[in-house]
Amino acid sequence: MSKLNVTQKLIKEHLLKGEMIPGKEIGIKIDQALLQDATGTLVQLELEAMGLDKAQTEVAVQYVDHNLLQTDFKNADDHLFLLSAAQKFGLWYSRPGNGVSHPVHMERFGKPGKTMVGSDSHTPAAGSLGMLAIGTGGLDVAAAIAGQPYFVKMPEVWGVKLTGNLPDWVSAKDVILEMLRRHDVKGGVGKVIEYYGDGLKNLSAMDRHVIANMGAELGATTTVFPSDEETKRFLKSQKREDDWRELVADEGCEYDLHEEIILDDLVPLIALPTSPGNVVPVSEVAGKPISQVVIGSSANPGLRDFWIAGAIVEDKAVSSDVSFDVNPTSRQIIQNMIDNRAFANLIKAGARFHQSGCMGCIGMGQAPASGTISLRTMPRNFPDRSGTKDDQVHLCSPETAAASALTGKITDPRDLEKLYDMKYPKFEYPEFHIIKDDMLVAPPEDGSKVELQKGPNIKSLPYIEPMQDHYSVPVMLKMGDNISTDEILKAGAEVLPFRSNLPEISKFSYTVIDETFYDRAMKAKGEHGGHIVVAKDNYAQGSSREHAAIAPKYLGQVAVIANSYARIAWQNLVNFGILPLEFIDISDFDKIEQDDQVIFKNLREDIKNRNNIKVIVKKANGEKVSFETRHSMSDRQINILMKGGIINEFKERIEANELGEGQAMDADETDTK
Amino acid sequence: MSKLNVTQKLIKEHLLKGEMIPGKEIGIKIDQALLQDATGTLVQLELEAMGLDKAQTEVAVQYVDHNLLQTDFKNADDHLFLLSAAQKFGLWYSRPGNGVSHPVHMERFGKPGKTMVGSDSHTPAAGSLGMLAIGTGGLDVAAAIAGQPYFVKMPEVWGVKLTGNLPDWVSAKDVILEMLRRHDVKGGVGKVIEYYGDGLKNLSAMDRHVIANMGAELGATTTVFPSDEETKRFLKSQKREDDWRELVADEGCEYDLHEEIILDDLVPLIALPTSPGNVVPVSEVAGKPISQVVIGSSANPGLRDFWIAGAIVEDKAVSSDVSFDVNPTSRQIIQNMIDNRAFANLIKAGARFHQSGCMGCIGMGQAPASGTISLRTMPRNFPDRSGTKDDQVHLCSPETAAASALTGKITDPRDLEKLYDMKYPKFEYPEFHIIKDDMLVAPPEDGSKVELQKGPNIKSLPYIEPMQDHYSVPVMLKMGDNISTDEILKAGAEVLPFRSNLPEISKFSYTVIDETFYDRAMKAKGEHGGHIVVAKDNYAQGSSREHAAIAPKYLGQVAVIANSYARIAWQNLVNFGILPLEFIDISDFDKIEQDDQVIFKNLREDIKNRNNIKVIVKKANGEKVSFETRHSMSDRQINILMKGGIINEFKERIEANELGEGQAMDADETDTK
Repeated sequence: MSKLNVTQKLIKEHLLKGEMIPGKEIGIKIDQALLQDATGTLVQLELEAMGLDKAQTEVAVQYVDHNLLQTDFKNADDHLFLLSAAQKFGLWYSRPGNGVSHPVHMERFGKPGKTMVGSDSHTPAAGSLGMLAIGTGGLDVAAAIAGQPYFVKMPEVWGVKLTGNLPDWVSAKDVILEMLRRHDVKGGVGKVIEYYGDGLKNLSAMDRHVIANMGAELGATTTVFPSDEETKRFLKSQKREDDWRELVADEGCEYDLHEEIILDDLVPLIALPTSPGNVVPVSEVAGKPISQVVIGSSANPGLRDFWIAGAIVEDKAVSSDVSFDVNPTSRQIIQNMIDNRAFANLIKAGARFHQSGCMGCIGMGQAPASGTISLRTMPRNFPDRSGTKDDQVHLCSPETAAASALTGKITDPRDLEKLYDMKYPKFEYPEFHIIKDDMLVAPPEDGSKVELQKGPNIKSLPYIEPMQDHYSVPVMLKMGDNISTDEILKAGAEVLPFRSNLPEISKFSYTVIDETFYDRAMKAKGEHGGHIVVAKDNYAQGSSREHAAIAPKYLGQVAVIANSYARIAWQNLVNFGILPLEFIDISDFDKIEQDDQVIFKNLREDIKNRNNIKVIVKKANGEKVSFETRHSMSDRQINILMKGGIINEFKERIEANELGEGQAMDADETDTK
Repeated sequence: MSKLNVTQKLIKEHLLKGEMIPGKEIGIKIDQALLQDATGTLVQLELEAMGLDKAQTEVAVQYVDHNLLQTDFKNADDHLFLLSAAQKFGLWYSRPGNGVSHPVHMERFGKPGKTMVGSDSHTPAAGSLGMLAIGTGGLDVAAAIAGQPYFVKMPEVWGVKLTGNLPDWVSAKDVILEMLRRHDVKGGVGKVIEYYGDGLKNLSAMDRHVIANMGAELGATTTVFPSDEETKRFLKSQKREDDWRELVADEGCEYDLHEEIILDDLVPLIALPTSPGNVVPVSEVAGKPISQVVIGSSANPGLRDFWIAGAIVEDKAVSSDVSFDVNPTSRQIIQNMIDNRAFANLIKAGARFHQSGCMGCIGMGQAPASGTISLRTMPRNFPDRSGTKDDQVHLCSPETAAASALTGKITDPRDLEKLYDMKYPKFEYPEFHIIKDDMLVAPPEDGSKVELQKGPNIKSLPYIEPMQDHYSVPVMLKMGDNISTDEILKAGAEVLPFRSNLPEISKFSYTVIDETFYDRAMKAKGEHGGHIVVAKDNYAQGSSREHAAIAPKYLGQVAVIANSYARIAWQNLVNFGILPLEFIDISDFDKIEQDDQVIFKNLREDIKNRNNIKVIVKKANGEKVSFETRHSMSDRQINILMKGGIINEFKERIEANELGEGQAMDADETDTK
């Protein structure tokens, strides 16, 4: 591997642990961290619980772009909490309404050659500038902020060669839709997608953002672009030319997988309901009536994207039965849109302008009318994500969206040439953007005196006891195969408002299975100091949400005994101090029932020495049976579990001043999410 | 009364019934109607139920400005329904995001010398142009659209003489706050407030809008300004000079009540939580930390109001812990704000710009953080209206709001001279506004072919049976004194989404008193064709909501027997076909119990002839008792009741082509709300 592609160069420069062999785990140094508000409150509570003094990353930014609809006190309280936490822990704070994290980060903080983790799945957007940027769970971001390496399996690098130039009325969104058309939503799993080739010079940095951002929909680990002259031009236009460095693939480097896209051959594409992978040419579905068009989101965030929509609707009016919603990406983009008349063009044509943020892209308003078609420049159209159960969300380029808004029907933008005698408007990138950074609040030199500002719905994470030697606790639930994290802790509008309030969110633990769980578990916690649960195969499959471990832990969960575990959930259990035991003989499943009392003895020694763990089961009638179980934790994980979870373990090391790059963790057992 | 004030002239020109003697009922011709979306869906369903062909008013406009946060399908469905209904019944339709009804109406439709009813309490804002504009319940608006006169007690006219000129940093909002400081929130009840005097020439038409709009908080019937040279200038700037006519008070005219405000003596004022009448000088509370400032709403809607805020924050940044929310009034205002740099000034200083509409003013988002102070240029700060239970909403001028946003504390804007070495910026009214009316959808010539577009949550009003001669129905509830409409049909987030869905909203009938009511009533409807309820004094007090009559009617309510009724609710009962009976001897209250069967015989004749109505009560054990009751309906009301309510009565007359100005209704018993 003397000749490296861009991905390999990025990894090599940041490699702290492991070898760069696809499938083998590596630990890399993380330079930057990105947090948004929906996931960020828990990350900040984790930093508080760890006792972090100051962020160790070069740049960490807490954005507020998700929960902007303040229908009660909770979101506004969260914003004030996040500001105080950012000040305390040394993060930048991007104020509510300042803009969507990914494009703002690219404009103001992104830097070629750097690595980043972010608690948002579209974090790969930063790959547009030659960064290695990966979306992760909250604890991974907290760990990176605390100076820890990030562990991930060395991905395969998938080289996508771009040649030629895009035809009129076809834009970057159609490139990533073409990738989705070819490979669907799992085509990128385990891979980093790296774009290269002659065609690149015809894609602006913000075009590359579109492609890298929505690369998340391919399931890819991330997407990487080189840092070239276009990257330099972009950074110069942001008055950050000094942040540029060249980062291009070595001549003759290799890729693990190959792909080619001839840009000239592309046509306007559209993803039909209800998957970003359900892609067809716009012409195939043209003519269907629509009720809504939404322009915006991190998947089409650039000034060009709004300008082209504005140029298409200039001096016209959108169809009277179409709601034409425009979500400007950021305050900066709005200022530039005012300057280049895009804003006035859109308003005059009938736009409903919304505050800068994710808005309808994450179901914060903008739900379409029942059963009607909504065209969006957004990255996702999963069922009900819009807020309307029978929604018909289609994903497309700003060109297709604007054309359709005018006609009130799905419209191939190439037809505008005939319909309106229109030539394809060409955007002139401004030499310099209007820049105003006042709404990015810098961290103070010393945040130690800052008080965390916690509204009534924000509760510090409770201290978790270290693992004890001896337990005598009841079996709270006995479950079957494939219990999902949605059954352990459901999502939805009733539950999510308590994302920063563990005592409250814990009340929803296992309610899908048994509504009495919370009351029984709290009683058992008081009387016996905790409980266990029992399941069969593939326990805790599905979403990677950490709350499905931390909430049961809050209710006193000491251990789970299951036949097997979903991988991420198994790690989450250990990270939050719950012992994941495995049946050695699955027929023992029949020996244990709900409400039995379970006795563990000499637990710490047995775990450490990898002895089988004896489970003594005491029935209501006093009868006792017993069987043996095992665990498959690594030494690192055993250490974490003993201490009551990863937060305690971090805290101890932070207090002992032991945190150092790459020394902290053993890579063997950690994994990507 | 040979010399008339403006109010008297307006009434005289429109008088169809009655005499202009304060306290006596008059019927006036209505020229214009204003509907907003939150109340408008029911009005449109009433028009449908009446079988209306085409609006009879000169101008009727269906605005969409309230329910703009689309978190599920319902609001978007309502918007499409309202568009189709406006097209069918001959109303203009102002599209979602086009702007707040009152200022848009003033700019594009308001006309000196005209009368208007509106299904929104701030309808009096149109008084700024020399109109008589009154906020009413939905059925009154529906009746006006169907060509009926509006009946109201001839109000006293309260002349408020304005002299002098406003000092720097003091603006129109401080004038109406001064009125509220002097007279509190009931000071205007039963009165029309008419402003006159030399000081008027120093108040622009939009300044007058501020005063007329928030006059609703004084409890006034409406507020009236003359139509003078300033009115002409305003209409000319809107390219509607032809709509102007002069309308000023006769020299030497009289007022029933007198007041004087010397504008030069005013200081910046602020209404403290939690009443618009709780007014003190800003200087008294200056220095308190704030978390939010909101600029916008129909109480400060003008271009000047945004411009002055923009001028104050120009080239500065708002305090980093303040959410600076800006709700631009309308698309037209946004275009003009772009033109005069107000938009860029506000954005650069840190504004969160929201879509045009009422937004936080009616609790649609923008809820402040717990227990923190929010400064708003809005008209109301009732408890919890913001969405935050312990909110601390203060009401003030744009000057005070913008000054406070900069400092992060309540700030007297006069202090800006010292703090920022700033002179009071003076707004130059543009000769012409930028005007673009595309988002006002005109009604078609013939709407008869238009299909009403009803989402799954929009249900036509069911047909109500005419009053029968004979009933044998159970007593569903027996209640005590002072039962409120909130107990009959509660409001709140759980109930309001069903405002257009009578079958669903009916499920909440009386749930506050008895959760089994709905099930029992539906059973009784099936088995016996209906039910009655019994109460003591002041039945159905509180909010005037019509749903508290129409929902019980839907569940089969034939009659109420009570000792006395709240006035508006009593009218609502009749309007929706429920017989309001009164005990003659209150001791009969003890003869009737829940679950008794009640028998009425020869009911139609007895009602018509004003005989006492005999109530035969059959107990579970077969025992029978009886007592006599009476009613106090007018002939007009008897006629309505016989037909099953006002909608049936209208419908019959519309079908018979009998509707004509002033012939339709007998004024004796109708009343203002």
